[in-house]
Amino acid sequence: MKTNQQLTIGLFGFGVVGEGLYKVLQQTPSLNASIKKICIKNYGKKRNAPATLFTTDKNDLLLDHDINVIVEVIDDADAAFEIVSTALQNGKDVVSASKKMIAAHLIELLELQQITGQSFLYESAACASIPVIRNLEEYYDNDLLHSIKAIVNGSTNYILTKIFAEGLKFKDALLLAQQSGFAESNPQLDVDGYDAVNKWTFLLTHAYGITDAPENILFHGIQNIHARDAETATARKQEIKLVAQAQKLKNGRVAAFVLPQFINCDDHLAFVKNEYNGVVIESGFADKQFFYGKGAGSFPTASAVLSDISALRYGYKYEYKKLYHHQPHELAGDFYLKVYISTEEIPLLPKEQFCWIDEWHIASDRKYVHGVIAYSTLLKNSWWKERGVSLILFPDPIIEEIETKKIKQRSLELAGLEKV
Amino acid sequence: MKTNQQLTIGLFGFGVVGEGLYKVLQQTPSLNASIKKICIKNYGKKRNAPATLFTTDKNDLLLDHDINVIVEVIDDADAAFEIVSTALQNGKDVVSASKKMIAAHLIELLELQQITGQSFLYESAACASIPVIRNLEEYYDNDLLHSIKAIVNGSTNYILTKIFAEGLKFKDALLLAQQSGFAESNPQLDVDGYDAVNKWTFLLTHAYGITDAPENILFHGIQNIHARDAETATARKQEIKLVAQAQKLKNGRVAAFVLPQFINCDDHLAFVKNEYNGVVIESGFADKQFFYGKGAGSFPTASAVLSDISALRYGYKYEYKKLYHHQPHELAGDFYLKVYISTEEIPLLPKEQFCWIDEWHIASDRKYVHGVIAYSTLLKNSWWKERGVSLILFPDPIIEEIETKKIKQRSLELAGLEKV
Repeated sequence: MKTNQQLTIGLFGFGVVGEGLYKVLQQTPSLNASIKKICIKNYGKKRNAPATLFTTDKNDLLLDHDINVIVEVIDDADAAFEIVSTALQNGKDVVSASKKMIAAHLIELLELQQITGQSFLYESAACASIPVIRNLEEYYDNDLLHSIKAIVNGSTNYILTKIFAEGLKFKDALLLAQQSGFAESNPQLDVDGYDAVNKWTFLLTHAYGITDAPENILFHGIQNIHARDAETATARKQEIKLVAQAQKLKNGRVAAFVLPQFINCDDHLAFVKNEYNGVVIESGFADKQFFYGKGAGSFPTASAVLSDISALRYGYKYEYKKLYHHQPHELAGDFYLKVYISTEEIPLLPKEQFCWIDEWHIASDRKYVHGVIAYSTLLKNSWWKERGVSLILFPDPIIEEIETKKIKQRSLELAGLEKV
Repeated sequence: MKTNQQLTIGLFGFGVVGEGLYKVLQQTPSLNASIKKICIKNYGKKRNAPATLFTTDKNDLLLDHDINVIVEVIDDADAAFEIVSTALQNGKDVVSASKKMIAAHLIELLELQQITGQSFLYESAACASIPVIRNLEEYYDNDLLHSIKAIVNGSTNYILTKIFAEGLKFKDALLLAQQSGFAESNPQLDVDGYDAVNKWTFLLTHAYGITDAPENILFHGIQNIHARDAETATARKQEIKLVAQAQKLKNGRVAAFVLPQFINCDDHLAFVKNEYNGVVIESGFADKQFFYGKGAGSFPTASAVLSDISALRYGYKYEYKKLYHHQPHELAGDFYLKVYISTEEIPLLPKEQFCWIDEWHIASDRKYVHGVIAYSTLLKNSWWKERGVSLILFPDPIIEEIETKKIKQRSLELAGLEKV
């Protein structure tokens, strides 16, 4: 069982993570792993590694019989999928950091693992240095997960921290994030929530056996958060975070989404500042647990890749226990969310889409409402994502059931208020 | 490799943890594990399980060929060692929660694992529900651990939290801890630091390959902490925690101890309140990570035991990589600590044992000094543990090197001050 096999690595990508991994491997000779070849897009740049290591031909790696491990840390999701699927089919184990690719091709990748029997590990793809996948797979495999709540995107958390801790404007905070290397030059993937929902897609597989595509998961980023929203939060002694959340409902299904959320100052996630990530797991037996660590950066990511490489020496595979050994869970569609929505134009809000509105504030230059809205309504409509409209969830935002009577009554109240 | 073998369990002990485990196992049929027999000390009490399960004869479990796993959650360390060693020698895998036994018999247990080839798992013995051993073994096996700092004892942390958050006196806080089930009726093992140093003993094995006995590790509990010390801390916006710490020094050795420590309010460990435990790991690649969860209680402990049982299905063993695959580290003896010592009788402090004293405060009914003292001095002397004397470390307490000149000069200053 313990083979401690020699690992000969073919590495795709030599950006910050690839180079970080190269350095890290040089510092850990005990690992019994060496990089034989590195595939890059073009020879243009000067690289901090011997020129003989590099090639631009992927087949120099994928068809090399000596190479038994492919490590893939490139930016291009389509190219990454081709590399990963070919490598698995060619009998190589694969370590990947491409969250977008994994989320987009989840079903195919699950099948490929079953067909080929090869290992496909990607701890670095979610929360970088926090061993969240490994712990969900190994440690919580028999525990009842009530909920999992996480900050999985370091860039947006860095921006929000700067807005709250230093009073920066969104634009300036974003610029600072870019200058500090915590946001890409094209930050849309992070800021608009795509990166977070991609990660959430496969974390839901490990946590609950859910294999839905990212398109089926309700999400939005922080791009519409306004200075007034931050002020509102501060006045309530709260912060705003981009929170990925999943919670098992009484009906056995799982409510899951990635949305901005008000966070109380004593919440575990309030502890997570700057580019850090954090995961709070509530389970039947272990109670509440909190994992915290760097979610971005070359070394934290390289460290997670290294941990996967290390696990390959002993033939480690994800078992996807919640998917294959248990009855997998389904995404819930029939629940409600407590929302705050601010905008400049309250009259334009489609009030008929709310179950009810508890409060509205129109006495300021930015107007906002508190109300309850069905998850399915948000999934089907996009007005709340439009520029100038900012939707933020309240803490503990999920309402499982609402009596129809109550909705009707509240609607009447709402109509009455409107007349006033 | 993946055998998913049927586990037939012999359980020793049916206290809160044993009963918790019994309940938890009943709720997780997917585990393919069942308890065949439970050994208890006497039949006296009424038990919440079928009477036919119970026996008072340990050989009913240890000699039963059907039973392939012994789970041991009893209080008596000597009896526990006999059970564990016999079980391993009889070809059974063992899961244990007995930190005291593991710390006291560490070397023998390491040998027994090597000789018998059986698995011996004890995740529940340190930090209960936090998977700290598994992560040190699997996730940090190739990373350079700069330091590990932890709150590993829930009882003392509960008491200290009540002292700081609610202004309780030590005695009242202890009583409350006992009433809430977070401290034993005989709390000395917890309060005096024995429990914490026992856990630290084998955590050091997994973190650094250190196999020293608990007697070789400098430790003290919270029994001498005085209300004035708490006031001093509060005035500095700090708290006092019982902190287990280990740090790799420049000379390659590891400074390790368990002592009360002032904790800044922005320190990760300040987040750890009441009966919770927390572990902060600083490593070369993953940077700073923080694990937090319940460190005590029947279900959190049972959950960790369950996780070990689950891992046995696939033949999981600790590899003690830092001990066997790397050059194991040695405990350092040649470093210095920044200390605060309060007492009613400053003149009785052996000033010649300090490297120097920075400050002394004698204007209150309780006097205290700030100074630097050699680790080896503390290890060799016990005056600082005596009733009425309270030693608390400052944050970042370790000084690796001190110029002899500086010690001399400071001593002269000290002598001068004394004349004044």
